[in-house]
Amino acid sequence: MNTSLLNRRTIRRYADRDIDPNRLNGLLALAARTQTMGNLQLYSVIVTTSAEGKAALAPSHFNQPMTTQAPVVLTICADFRRTSRWAECRRAVPGYNNFLSFLNAATDALLYTQTFCNLAEAEGLGLCYLGTTLYNPQPIIDALKLPQLVFPVATLTVGWPDEVPALSDRLPLESFVHSETYHDPTPDDIDRYYTPKEQLPENRHFVELNQKETLAQIFTDIRYTREANESCSQALLDALRNQGFLGNEE
Amino acid sequence: MNTSLLNRRTIRRYADRDIDPNRLNGLLALAARTQTMGNLQLYSVIVTTSAEGKAALAPSHFNQPMTTQAPVVLTICADFRRTSRWAECRRAVPGYNNFLSFLNAATDALLYTQTFCNLAEAEGLGLCYLGTTLYNPQPIIDALKLPQLVFPVATLTVGWPDEVPALSDRLPLESFVHSETYHDPTPDDIDRYYTPKEQLPENRHFVELNQKETLAQIFTDIRYTREANESCSQALLDALRNQGFLGNEE
Repeated sequence: MNTSLLNRRTIRRYADRDIDPNRLNGLLALAARTQTMGNLQLYSVIVTTSAEGKAALAPSHFNQPMTTQAPVVLTICADFRRTSRWAECRRAVPGYNNFLSFLNAATDALLYTQTFCNLAEAEGLGLCYLGTTLYNPQPIIDALKLPQLVFPVATLTVGWPDEVPALSDRLPLESFVHSETYHDPTPDDIDRYYTPKEQLPENRHFVELNQKETLAQIFTDIRYTREANESCSQALLDALRNQGFLGNEE
Repeated sequence: MNTSLLNRRTIRRYADRDIDPNRLNGLLALAARTQTMGNLQLYSVIVTTSAEGKAALAPSHFNQPMTTQAPVVLTICADFRRTSRWAECRRAVPGYNNFLSFLNAATDALLYTQTFCNLAEAEGLGLCYLGTTLYNPQPIIDALKLPQLVFPVATLTVGWPDEVPALSDRLPLESFVHSETYHDPTPDDIDRYYTPKEQLPENRHFVELNQKETLAQIFTDIRYTREANESCSQALLDALRNQGFLGNEE
């Protein structure tokens, strides 16, 4: 895996070739060896392979072409529903309609997701992780018919790669690893951490193209703006409430 | 990695042997190849190796012995602080003091965490994932001196294994993989999914020891009760607010 990880890149274009369902199921099963809270496996995976299913999900992912072009779309959900149903069938009273339980299940789901990613990439599959899942979850909930206490936290498009994009850069280790307590970065630290990224030709080009002064402005003014973050935060909280994770409505 | 994953178990007892810092840093650096939102790497890792540092964290983890016995404790944090500082140093106005940004950073942090787990376990290291991180984050925030927009989401104790516990069971694939839409489990499904787990000798013993009727009651009445979940949900939301992720207090 070390080698595949060193060479990993997000893949957004896929060959016209299906993924053998046995292979996919084998990876989905093996990923479940990941540690999980109380061994409860607080996640579910919705596998979308039909053209209609992908088309229904596409708008939630800003109609990015990989959503419909990939042979498989996986929506990984935080799931306290199955465990709660189990309790109800066994004379036990579940108490998981609260925020901690959401974060516990989301954690289980995301750890599971990443083991799946590492396994699939080690087999040569190409993945794109769609962060858009959290921007507007309600239409995804509706399309996949997710019941109470099930909430989508990650989406992966999966297929055989049809491109070899450039490796992306990463920040130096010292920028994100801290010894004993958090080291708040000084302006000099920030220069040292971020200047190499800012000087990459593609990033300089991107700043110029968008008529911005700095790369950071690309993020704050265009890609992840306060306005979008705040309106999506509200949509996210509303969807969490609808799915029963923020109260005692049950 | 497939083999190490098939054999993976949580390790709570460690040999009296340090982890070479170069090895640890190599794993922490390689794990950063994991995909990340906008390539921003919205996480930080606090490495605790001092006896005082571990002792300060131990109460937050219910004084579980691995917290002080492991040579290394890693606290992985959702971090929008470094990115916001970068913006501030570059004439950009960050807007990440909101709930979506917390979940985006928590996602980055958890995906990073799991790649680190996969890599470390493939090298023969033993890990225990401490879910207690989310139960009462404020003392962890205080001990590690985490500033605004940094929030602990996962803790790993790391060392060389000094035990070989039994492999834990997992639910069948059909219980957590759904085709196209969510299949709400019927009572028959629940029986099929959970009976093998309920019949394991250790689980039967556990139910008897605790004088419960069913294994599910062990979870609802003892391990993860509604009362604890609700009081921890409040503590979690309070800590998120204190760290600036729930509002416009900045």
